[in-house]
Amino acid sequence: MKSNTDILVIGGGPSGIVAAVMGKSSYPEKDVLLIRKEKQAIIPCGIPYIFGSLENSAKDIVADKLLNTANVKLRIGEVISLDQKDKVCKLTDGQEISFEKLVLALGSTPTDPKWLKGTSLKNVFTVQKDKEYIDQMMTRLKGHQKVVVVGGGFIGVEISDEINKIGKDVTIVEVLPHILGLAFDEEISIKAEEQLISRGVKIRVGVGAQEILGDERVTGILLQNGEKLEADAVILSMGYRPNTELAHKSGLEINEMGFIVVDEYMRTGNPDIFAIGDCAEKRDFFTRRLSRIMLASTATSEARIAAMNLYNLSVVKTFGGTIGIFSTAIGDTGLGAAGLTETVAKRDGFDVVTGTFEGVNKHPGALLGTHKQTVKLIVGRKSGIILGGEAIGGTGVGELINLVGFVVQNKMTINSILTAQIGTHPLLTAPPTAYPLIKAAEVVAKKI
Amino acid sequence: MKSNTDILVIGGGPSGIVAAVMGKSSYPEKDVLLIRKEKQAIIPCGIPYIFGSLENSAKDIVADKLLNTANVKLRIGEVISLDQKDKVCKLTDGQEISFEKLVLALGSTPTDPKWLKGTSLKNVFTVQKDKEYIDQMMTRLKGHQKVVVVGGGFIGVEISDEINKIGKDVTIVEVLPHILGLAFDEEISIKAEEQLISRGVKIRVGVGAQEILGDERVTGILLQNGEKLEADAVILSMGYRPNTELAHKSGLEINEMGFIVVDEYMRTGNPDIFAIGDCAEKRDFFTRRLSRIMLASTATSEARIAAMNLYNLSVVKTFGGTIGIFSTAIGDTGLGAAGLTETVAKRDGFDVVTGTFEGVNKHPGALLGTHKQTVKLIVGRKSGIILGGEAIGGTGVGELINLVGFVVQNKMTINSILTAQIGTHPLLTAPPTAYPLIKAAEVVAKKI
Repeated sequence: MKSNTDILVIGGGPSGIVAAVMGKSSYPEKDVLLIRKEKQAIIPCGIPYIFGSLENSAKDIVADKLLNTANVKLRIGEVISLDQKDKVCKLTDGQEISFEKLVLALGSTPTDPKWLKGTSLKNVFTVQKDKEYIDQMMTRLKGHQKVVVVGGGFIGVEISDEINKIGKDVTIVEVLPHILGLAFDEEISIKAEEQLISRGVKIRVGVGAQEILGDERVTGILLQNGEKLEADAVILSMGYRPNTELAHKSGLEINEMGFIVVDEYMRTGNPDIFAIGDCAEKRDFFTRRLSRIMLASTATSEARIAAMNLYNLSVVKTFGGTIGIFSTAIGDTGLGAAGLTETVAKRDGFDVVTGTFEGVNKHPGALLGTHKQTVKLIVGRKSGIILGGEAIGGTGVGELINLVGFVVQNKMTINSILTAQIGTHPLLTAPPTAYPLIKAAEVVAKKI
Repeated sequence: MKSNTDILVIGGGPSGIVAAVMGKSSYPEKDVLLIRKEKQAIIPCGIPYIFGSLENSAKDIVADKLLNTANVKLRIGEVISLDQKDKVCKLTDGQEISFEKLVLALGSTPTDPKWLKGTSLKNVFTVQKDKEYIDQMMTRLKGHQKVVVVGGGFIGVEISDEINKIGKDVTIVEVLPHILGLAFDEEISIKAEEQLISRGVKIRVGVGAQEILGDERVTGILLQNGEKLEADAVILSMGYRPNTELAHKSGLEINEMGFIVVDEYMRTGNPDIFAIGDCAEKRDFFTRRLSRIMLASTATSEARIAAMNLYNLSVVKTFGGTIGIFSTAIGDTGLGAAGLTETVAKRDGFDVVTGTFEGVNKHPGALLGTHKQTVKLIVGRKSGIILGGEAIGGTGVGELINLVGFVVQNKMTINSILTAQIGTHPLLTAPPTAYPLIKAAEVVAKKI
């Protein structure tokens, strides 16, 4: 059987949803169909919180209402082949769907480290974006107490904090010198480690996993320094790889890092086929070098760009490369980063000066719930252009880092911060006399 | 006796502090002296919170450490005259201080409505930026239960919510159709009213005070519609007027609204004398019309501009007019506005379209403490330039509105929002698929 649509979106994650909804709103006269494998799509960034705060996966499901109210059609099914020339996709059940424009939002899958012995032992898990898998994982974790999480990136840190919250004995093993070491400079990562440790999470940094131990089921883990950690369960959180088989088989170009090659309109080599989100090529905003940063928020930004350019290109709506904008929380401590860290900026050859200010997130500081708040800015020495910023403080850091992200994306200078009008309120922000973003800019200004 | 300094700052509020600290850091070789009347300077935006959250005024005092560590000298004293020509100030104790550059940060005083009968009755208060006055007011309020607050602006609303919190019976009387009516459009103000009412504060809107009733001490208040409200105490929160006597007597020009006339470097007619904060002329960012908006955050922005331009003007560091950027909180509900409201934009002749999106401030919405979050954007129809934004949601709104403020100040268009990369996190922000600022921009884009 064969059916057809104008716009076909493959993938029901955040970028697929946004591309479909915005595709329909940009081209209301076109039919939009979204096809996904999962009966119920899980909200990816919410997965770590299923284990503690949310209590079960049913609370972390994408509401299909968003698609329905936007008049996007939804089909559950798996596309197994794509014919680029005839512009038709084939499903596992033999059905075919032809399209005018195709958006690949194929997502990513946890890395399976083949070099690590013991990953197939019972009670060794990865963090899969799959409701059934997560449900089984939760059931299995219930009976076990000692958990080792391999990988101290965002997912590893968030899951560790949540599993610790429900009373497990958790140890993070991170091969880099510090947890969250790709997103933050050392001094911020150290503060994050202090937070986790104060909450009861154990941390081993600067050492990788050598072997997962056990017969049938896991009993421990051997580290590269010879140390053995006992474990009833091991969670591998060692990154994700882009899902690109469908694209690759159809002849679309894949880059050296394994992502589908796209241009700044998110078009593949075939102008009728777009790729967005975790499966699509990423480049750094400042250097244009290939990047591996996969984020739901960046994915939705790519989705909006693709959707707006499906039938007509717009010169002002392009994707200029990923700035890398992250946020997370450990308890009531929020952390965020946007743009380049000092470490990365220097590694990439930028001549930078930095400014850090430590203040508070409410004022006066005597107010209940006042939290220390630190902001660091990384600035081009000659241009004064803000290349990046990092923040650690209260929960307001989530939006504060979005402000920094705007500054970075628009290549603003420290002057734009020094002269900025900001709003302040005792219960919501730092004081007007010591707003950390401005104070950090002052530190930079003195150095330039 | 006569002494001298290079830079003299009169006034110890937020703008005075920032001007002194930044003046010293911009011109480290210069001596900076700050002179203020008050032994202990109160943090103005914290005043409402003294009545409830902070419990006493001692917790709302400016730390002079900020001045000391910056090597700014501090003197307690009152300047009674300024000789522009000889560049010398005279204090009440007869001392004289000569200066190279003078910064007037004279602040403001509560409006005393002479047309309103009964304001001198016992237990009728204004909200003065004076520790002793506030201490006495708190002592006197202790014995009384029924409080009427006249004026539903930010200070009136914040004091009402705090006094309600400690168990008083509070009624706000506001002559405009809605509380916070100068800062927000009607639909947002109504949400704020609902919040206050749900917390037990009573509200009378669209009706002014006619007379404060009582013999020696206040017993009630008569409204313009004939209604009488019983009251043991009345708090007048009807705005502030700039302190300009010193400037006026010295011959500096005062504008028709009563503020000291300044240029975009915050210079008065005398290039060696600057005026900043509540006493200095305000103009609207978009229309350049005179404005009465007095805010600590804007004041500190003016202070930074003045400080950086004291001895040498910088073409990139000017004050382009006030955008009006506010935030406040009612319980755990944050409210913020930046730039023009729809009402003001239309009144001033702008052809605007608006977009509103109602979402949540965490994701998934099942997370504990998730709060509804609404963002409204006001956009020029032809240019797509963002003229203003309003938000109501959780406490993250404080920084979210600072992001909107950056967009407004930099005259960005909705394209910059539609293509923006934002960071999202379950515990800190809305979901990537429904970030309210972007969704509101989408609503606008459909209309343009």
